[in-house]
Amino acid sequence: MVLALAAAEFPQVDLAFHPQCFVEKGHFAGDDAVRLAALLDAANDPDIDAVWFGMGGYGACRIAADAAAGMGEAARSKTFLGYSDAGTILGALYRYGIGKPVHGPLAGDIKRDGGDEAIRRVLRYLSGEVVELETGLDHRPAVAFNLMTLAMLVGTELMPDVKDHVVLVEEIAEHLYAIDRLFFHITQQLEGAVGIRLGRISAVPENDRPFGSTEEDIARYWCEKSGIPYLGRADIGHDAQNAIVPFGITHHKDFT
Amino acid sequence: MVLALAAAEFPQVDLAFHPQCFVEKGHFAGDDAVRLAALLDAANDPDIDAVWFGMGGYGACRIAADAAAGMGEAARSKTFLGYSDAGTILGALYRYGIGKPVHGPLAGDIKRDGGDEAIRRVLRYLSGEVVELETGLDHRPAVAFNLMTLAMLVGTELMPDVKDHVVLVEEIAEHLYAIDRLFFHITQQLEGAVGIRLGRISAVPENDRPFGSTEEDIARYWCEKSGIPYLGRADIGHDAQNAIVPFGITHHKDFT
Repeated sequence: MVLALAAAEFPQVDLAFHPQCFVEKGHFAGDDAVRLAALLDAANDPDIDAVWFGMGGYGACRIAADAAAGMGEAARSKTFLGYSDAGTILGALYRYGIGKPVHGPLAGDIKRDGGDEAIRRVLRYLSGEVVELETGLDHRPAVAFNLMTLAMLVGTELMPDVKDHVVLVEEIAEHLYAIDRLFFHITQQLEGAVGIRLGRISAVPENDRPFGSTEEDIARYWCEKSGIPYLGRADIGHDAQNAIVPFGITHHKDFT
Repeated sequence: MVLALAAAEFPQVDLAFHPQCFVEKGHFAGDDAVRLAALLDAANDPDIDAVWFGMGGYGACRIAADAAAGMGEAARSKTFLGYSDAGTILGALYRYGIGKPVHGPLAGDIKRDGGDEAIRRVLRYLSGEVVELETGLDHRPAVAFNLMTLAMLVGTELMPDVKDHVVLVEEIAEHLYAIDRLFFHITQQLEGAVGIRLGRISAVPENDRPFGSTEEDIARYWCEKSGIPYLGRADIGHDAQNAIVPFGITHHKDFT
């Protein structure tokens, strides 16, 4: 479906899926070695301009360090685009100054309601068109993460320095008490961050009793407690509206 | 039920539940101030020998720092016993050298199958009887945590130093992929730990496909990757068999 849409509407884009995308090995699309090799194939190929992550299911933390270590010259100027668990790779690349990590829809997001638009947004962006980015981005550098993914990243060898950054987070399918404890964990470890913005917290499972405060109350509570400014909502989430957020400073030409 | 059991079988124990245990406020047994005040009431009362946590539901990280800061002389020699989310408090107390934190069944565990025995084990322990502790404890200091609780603790101001410690972990109701990423997270941050032992990983939700490796494979994988020795299974978990693990060095007199 993604290839058909790209062929019909983006003839200037040469899009290909690595065969690894279709491998199944337990929970993963191939074992660690297979996934790592596929990522390095694409990252180190000088004829490829961008690596677009197919899906965001779990597994990136098992290969991210080796991936960053294995990336050569061709990866340095390349765009890497995805989100959710793939944020682990984006974070590691950002930490090591490799390429241009970008939070945005995955190829697999075409299956969502309105997913075609998410795919078009990415293909326009990757084509170098001027596209609408996350609307709250300003002159300050930003990063965007799934909240759980970020929580598993902080304190590890993969975590980038977010000093002076605005940190955008989103989550899906976690109880509000889990959101609360994730906020405890991350707000203790975003040293120097200039603020947090809250994306969509979707598909929250029913608690055995109402949690007692909203997702925004939670974000405000922990921001206040940790001294990190809470900067309001962000237009990111596990949905077709999930906006594009280039890591780092977004240059004016990237804005519509 | 716990009071009745204690009265019938442990007449030497003067057991009382703080009224706060029965407060309901959203997800919590009282708001942060109410829970904090109750914990400090008990911790700072020189006539109380031990604080036994009633339940292990989420919320301890919201009050743990203030609790540690508010504990005075009477808390210094006191036993604090519980597990699951209450491990956050135990960890913080261990970090600050306050009292004797002990991993063990909660009062609420009486509702489990065989829960009476869990309650008896605790009441014997708190009475100063020689009771059976977790059978793998040796001359090395130990700590025991719920895996998610530990993952939220590492890197924060509440995390104790686990250098030279054996770290026991257990989990309930998490997917195996979540166990895997929690192991990634903790094995990066247990500096100096001499080993990890794996308690029970229970009530694992059905994945959309089999994960592809077992809980013990996961523990071994991350231990090998991080260089922390994997030391086998541990007799702890969210069940009535959950063994008692005093934090730190277990003195010979504590063993049966």
